[in-house]
Amino acid sequence: MRLGRLDHVGIAVNDLAAGRAFYEGVLGLEAAHEEVLEEQGVHELLFPLGDSWVQLVAPLGPDTPVGRFLAKRGEGVHHVGYAVTDIAGALEGLRASGMEVIEPAPRIGSGGTVVAFVHPSSAHGVLVELVEEGTGHRGRPSGA
Amino acid sequence: MRLGRLDHVGIAVNDLAAGRAFYEGVLGLEAAHEEVLEEQGVHELLFPLGDSWVQLVAPLGPDTPVGRFLAKRGEGVHHVGYAVTDIAGALEGLRASGMEVIEPAPRIGSGGTVVAFVHPSSAHGVLVELVEEGTGHRGRPSGA
Repeated sequence: MRLGRLDHVGIAVNDLAAGRAFYEGVLGLEAAHEEVLEEQGVHELLFPLGDSWVQLVAPLGPDTPVGRFLAKRGEGVHHVGYAVTDIAGALEGLRASGMEVIEPAPRIGSGGTVVAFVHPSSAHGVLVELVEEGTGHRGRPSGA
Repeated sequence: MRLGRLDHVGIAVNDLAAGRAFYEGVLGLEAAHEEVLEEQGVHELLFPLGDSWVQLVAPLGPDTPVGRFLAKRGEGVHHVGYAVTDIAGALEGLRASGMEVIEPAPRIGSGGTVVAFVHPSSAHGVLVELVEEGTGHRGRPSGA
């Protein structure tokens, strides 16, 4: 497998406006993309930073993956996203290595990306997301 | 404040060799820098990836910040590091915003960087590290 970039860090917050106030007002980032992903149960903001993004995700309700994460662990880093160019091949390689991939097949992520997740039990406690760029956009990284 | 890059994601692991086997053998990264930071109580590996690094940190003992993190939370993302060019000014701005900065003054991080941490209670559950490049090196990012 060949990872191309540290695509994003996904951070779970209880309230998207409060999270935005910290990342914009204190750290000086600027949100360039906002999206509701009903299927994943999240409302997200993307802040471009160099070649990467900081992603804030707030749950659409308590009975969603991010809602359950927040109830159990509180706010914090939820996952780490890595860019790949061939997600199907990458997943095949991961499964061949005995890794537990959560999705049977990749699904649509923010901005039309194609994504899949490796379970934290296979990845030293980190929920690892693989991201292949799609035909949409997510707000261009500021340094690109 | 102006953040320059998503510098690195710091991941706490119990065993550095086992962590390395996953990031090299499964994800295809390659460690380019290894260092023991006695003062911070960690043994670390840095894997360049685009403009960023993946950092694995294993504790030098149970009574260290990372040792206590592992005992409480288990393996996983420990902190997120952002590049800044003027860490002293950045910390001044953070304190003026009411943020809790852990160090009274910046200290030396890996590869001669100058670093300081914002407490998770000030940053929506994320331990935020600010990193100013020093005179050393950490293995150049592969895409730079």
